[in-house]
Amino acid sequence: MGGDHAPAMVIDGLEIAAERHPHARFLLVGNEQVLTALLSTRRRARAACTILHAAEAISADMKPTQALRSRASSMRLAIDAVAKGDAAGVVSAGNTGALLTLSKIVLKALPGIDRPAMAAIGPSARGDVVMLDLGANVQCDVRNLVEFAVMGDVFARCVLGLPAPTIGLLNVGSEELKGDDTVRQAAEILRASHIGPQFHGFVEGHDIAAGTTDVIVTDGFTGNVALKTAEGALKLIGGMLREVFKRNFFTKMAYLLAKPGLDRLREWLDPRRYNGAVMVGLNGVVVKSHGGTDAQGFAHAVDVAMDMVVHRFNDLIRDDLARLGLDKRTAREKNGATAGLAPV
Amino acid sequence: MGGDHAPAMVIDGLEIAAERHPHARFLLVGNEQVLTALLSTRRRARAACTILHAAEAISADMKPTQALRSRASSMRLAIDAVAKGDAAGVVSAGNTGALLTLSKIVLKALPGIDRPAMAAIGPSARGDVVMLDLGANVQCDVRNLVEFAVMGDVFARCVLGLPAPTIGLLNVGSEELKGDDTVRQAAEILRASHIGPQFHGFVEGHDIAAGTTDVIVTDGFTGNVALKTAEGALKLIGGMLREVFKRNFFTKMAYLLAKPGLDRLREWLDPRRYNGAVMVGLNGVVVKSHGGTDAQGFAHAVDVAMDMVVHRFNDLIRDDLARLGLDKRTAREKNGATAGLAPV
Repeated sequence: MGGDHAPAMVIDGLEIAAERHPHARFLLVGNEQVLTALLSTRRRARAACTILHAAEAISADMKPTQALRSRASSMRLAIDAVAKGDAAGVVSAGNTGALLTLSKIVLKALPGIDRPAMAAIGPSARGDVVMLDLGANVQCDVRNLVEFAVMGDVFARCVLGLPAPTIGLLNVGSEELKGDDTVRQAAEILRASHIGPQFHGFVEGHDIAAGTTDVIVTDGFTGNVALKTAEGALKLIGGMLREVFKRNFFTKMAYLLAKPGLDRLREWLDPRRYNGAVMVGLNGVVVKSHGGTDAQGFAHAVDVAMDMVVHRFNDLIRDDLARLGLDKRTAREKNGATAGLAPV
Repeated sequence: MGGDHAPAMVIDGLEIAAERHPHARFLLVGNEQVLTALLSTRRRARAACTILHAAEAISADMKPTQALRSRASSMRLAIDAVAKGDAAGVVSAGNTGALLTLSKIVLKALPGIDRPAMAAIGPSARGDVVMLDLGANVQCDVRNLVEFAVMGDVFARCVLGLPAPTIGLLNVGSEELKGDDTVRQAAEILRASHIGPQFHGFVEGHDIAAGTTDVIVTDGFTGNVALKTAEGALKLIGGMLREVFKRNFFTKMAYLLAKPGLDRLREWLDPRRYNGAVMVGLNGVVVKSHGGTDAQGFAHAVDVAMDMVVHRFNDLIRDDLARLGLDKRTAREKNGATAGLAPV
C-alpha cells in the first residue's frame, strides 16, 4: 500500500514480474477489497497472487516509532510473513525509515552482523556498481565498514553475477594515509581478510561513476549524500539537455537525428533500471522500491529480490562471516588496536 | 612552480589576469631563470610581475611534513610574503595538502576560528553555489560546522555578490530529526544565530545541483566525496554524449545543428569557470587552483583571490564572528549541551 502510486502501480509491476518469473508466487498484502478490484483486470498478476488482508497502512510521513505501533499495517504483515517463512522476501515501495526499523525488529540482523545496511546498484563507465551503506547507519565504526564490504561482495556476486568483485573503500584520497582512523583501520582489516585479493583500497567520489571498483563501501551518511548528489547532477544535465534540444527548429531536428543514441543513453541511466535498494544483513530479503517509481521500476525491484532469494544471498553472507571470523584473529594479532570485530 | 603544466600555464594565466585586473601587481615566486625566460614573451604579465626567486619547489607527491621542511620552496616563500604583508594573497596550483598545512602554520587561523576550511563554487540549476568544507577537515564537530556556515555566508557575499545568501546544512534528510547529533546541534545553533534568517535548515545531496540554497555546509569528508562524485557523474555523461554524437553521419549532423546550445552547456559546466578553491579562515587569502587547469582556469583562480581581497573577506568574517559571539550565549543558554563554540 506504500508509494506515490500504490497500490495500482504495484499490481501493474506484478503483472510484469509474473511474466518474468513464471514460477514465483506473490503474497499481496493490503486492503483486500482494493486489491481484488485492481487484480480483476490483471490476468497474470491475479494468477500469481494470494491476497493477505491488512486493515492499516503506514503513511509516507509516519515516524518509525509510530509505524512500530501499527501491528496490522500491510508493511508489518508483509515482514511478519517473511519472519514466519510464509514469504522468502518482501518488496515495498513504502516509508523507508519504517521498513528499515520494522525489518530490523521483526527479522533481526543476521548472526554476526552488527548493523544491517542499505545497498543499491547504479551505472558506471565500466558497468554496474554496488554501493552501501546508503543511509541506514549515519555513524559507522570500523566493524560496520568491514561488514558492509563483506555484504557488498556477496551482493555483487548474487545480483551482478561477478565471480570476484573488486571492492573500494570511499575516502577523500586514494593514498594509504588519507582519511580518518575508521577508514584506515577498516582498510587494514580488509587487506588481511579473505576478500583481501579483491580489495582495491581507497577510492574517491569520482571513482563511483568511473567504475574503478565493482563495490563501493562507505558509511550511511556519506553514501546517502553521494548517491543523491550524483542523482542531482544527472537530473540537472538531463534538464539542461532538454532545453538545448527544444530551443528551435534546428535543435529539434538535431534531437531527431541523434534520438537513437540519446534514447539508449537515457535508458541506460533510467533510475527504474536501478530501482530496488536492498536492506542487507537481515534474516530475510527486504527490498525497498523507490516510492515514486512506476510498474517497470517496481518489477525491477522484484527482480532484485528474486536474485537475492535464488542465489541464497543470506547463506553466502553467513559463510563469509565465518571466514572473516578466522581472518579476524590474524588481523587482530597484526593490528592490536583494531578490535570491534568480535561476534555480537 | 606547482601544477601539471607549471610554470608556463601560470604565466599564461597571469597574462589574462593582468588584463582583467590592470591595477594588480603580481609577485611571481619560483625559479628566476625559468620565469624570466617565460615572461619575455608575455608583455602584460611581464609589466605586472615582480619575480621572487625560490631555489626549491614542492612536488605533487610530497607529504605536508616534508613540505614543511623546505624553507626555500616557492610555495613557502609565497605564503611567507602574505604573512609579511608583501602580498595580499596567494594563488597556487601546487600540492593541496602542502598548501593547506603551510598556510595554517605560517598564516595561522583567524582569531576565533578553530579550523580553516576549503570552499569552492559550483554550478546549479538556480545559479552558482558555494560549498564547504571540501576536504580540509575529515572530522568536524558542531563548532566547526557553525564556523563553516559563517565563513560560507561571507564567501557568498564577497564572491557571488549576494546580499543575504541562503545556507543549507548537508544531511541525509531534510526533516529536523534526521542525521547525527553533530548536524542537529549545528542546525540549532545556526537557527538561533545572526544568520538564522538565512538558514534554510537541512539539505540533501540532490539539493546541491538543484541550487536549493546558495551555500552548502558540510564536513570535509562528505564535502570532498560529494564534490568528486558530482564531477565524476558529469564526466561520465559528457563522455557518453560525445559517443552518441560521433556515432555516424546523422549524429554528427545533429551535433552541428545543436552545437550553439551544447557549447553553451559545456561552457556553463566548464570546470575552469569554477577553478579556485579558497582556504577560508586564515589570516590571509589563499586560493588553490586545480593542478590540471589551463591559463583560463588559473586566471579564474586569480579572479577569486582578487574578489576576496577587494571585498575584505577576512574583515567581514571577523565582524561576523563577533556577532556570533553574542548569539552564541543565547544559543548556549537555550541548548545546554551545545558547547564547543567558546573562543580558542
